[in-house]
Amino acid sequence: MVSLVGAGPGDPELLTRRAALRLAEADVVLYDALVSPEVVALAVHALRVPVGKRAGRPSTRQESINRLLVRAARRGKRVVRLKGGDPFVFGRGGEEALALSAAGIPFEIVPGLSSALSAPALAGIPVTHRGLASAFVVVSGHAEAAYTPVLSALAPGSATVVVLMGLSRSAGIASLLVSKGWKRTTPAAICFAASTEDSFTWTGTLGDLGAVPKHEAPGTIVVGEVVSLAGVLGGAHEQPERERLHASR
Amino acid sequence: MVSLVGAGPGDPELLTRRAALRLAEADVVLYDALVSPEVVALAVHALRVPVGKRAGRPSTRQESINRLLVRAARRGKRVVRLKGGDPFVFGRGGEEALALSAAGIPFEIVPGLSSALSAPALAGIPVTHRGLASAFVVVSGHAEAAYTPVLSALAPGSATVVVLMGLSRSAGIASLLVSKGWKRTTPAAICFAASTEDSFTWTGTLGDLGAVPKHEAPGTIVVGEVVSLAGVLGGAHEQPERERLHASR
Repeated sequence: MVSLVGAGPGDPELLTRRAALRLAEADVVLYDALVSPEVVALAVHALRVPVGKRAGRPSTRQESINRLLVRAARRGKRVVRLKGGDPFVFGRGGEEALALSAAGIPFEIVPGLSSALSAPALAGIPVTHRGLASAFVVVSGHAEAAYTPVLSALAPGSATVVVLMGLSRSAGIASLLVSKGWKRTTPAAICFAASTEDSFTWTGTLGDLGAVPKHEAPGTIVVGEVVSLAGVLGGAHEQPERERLHASR
Repeated sequence: MVSLVGAGPGDPELLTRRAALRLAEADVVLYDALVSPEVVALAVHALRVPVGKRAGRPSTRQESINRLLVRAARRGKRVVRLKGGDPFVFGRGGEEALALSAAGIPFEIVPGLSSALSAPALAGIPVTHRGLASAFVVVSGHAEAAYTPVLSALAPGSATVVVLMGLSRSAGIASLLVSKGWKRTTPAAICFAASTEDSFTWTGTLGDLGAVPKHEAPGTIVVGEVVSLAGVLGGAHEQPERERLHASR
């Protein structure tokens, strides 16, 4: 039996109760590089195997993870495959589930909080808000060919845009939206390292998005009028342990 | 201090650990009609106040919820505002947070699993999957004027479409997509009462979506090639306690 478990954004309190249960009972945990050490540490009895995939690694790597999962499960181990955020949101959980299914191994999906929604929320940005946005679009910034048709077609301002893994392409994404009629003054944010001690939020405008200094931390880009709420709702947050950085608008 | 807490899709194990902590410590819990009784029951010491809003109720109702929150917090109570799914995904959490902020009351956001992602996931449908979808769009079916510009502009098949609160407009949404060039054979699903004992999934095609018999249960509509995975990944799920209904394709 394999549990494909979403680890959420990082803070171990933002794990689901089921995820915590599965980790506590696990014999083997295969975890990604982006999963926080505090979450991995909840697998107190397990052999913990980092299978850290980062952008740019060859794709054959996925096949070896699939093989590891199948092998551990066949040895009768309780296996947890722990993935940052949600396993089914740009997490390749579907591919691993298909591999398990093909090998005849029972599995379950334990959804986790995706950074697509939780990173903005923790920064005081609701992806929907009455009068500001009643729809949202989530793309990966990983592949230009994938996000371009979606963002190009979107009527300016008709939905909140969330970009995961888009920091290295933020300038191109901003230019694309502006070229399609989005105002350069549209509020924009980047939520870095959401829910961790290192979290901070840049807020500004679509026009400035491409010029935000690069950081090592993973970041979630949010574009839309809802970002204007971060000033009120982000500031009012009770998050004493977290440093916040709001650039001037 | 008020915690705006997402209750997730229904199963109390799919609550975050922080949400469970806040409920256990709460003096007062204001909860929505769609929150499952098992989740509300975790607030063992609290005065539990149903503030059940359902579609169609007059909007002044929201103001009285805001007033209740402010009043309870001013009496020094630990207040939890418990909302189905995530407070910031069509949950009007932003409005309540603004009301608290205006009243000078500290608050926090505790994100929850939105049905937009967790309902498909629990049915074996990843909203993104390599080769099938690298973007997704979430709209509310509540207001035609809100979803029409977004869905009309979307290039057919360029993203997975998720519709919350859209059961009563499923025929109109399907017609809209077909009129914009989506194939009638595009896989589609409705995930009813996700994560609860009453959960079941209808799968079929966009062409059939409008003819799905109506149910009392809340449902999440998913349209896109990723739905084709439900047959493999949904069936392989270890969910012995849950009845599943897969219509033939």
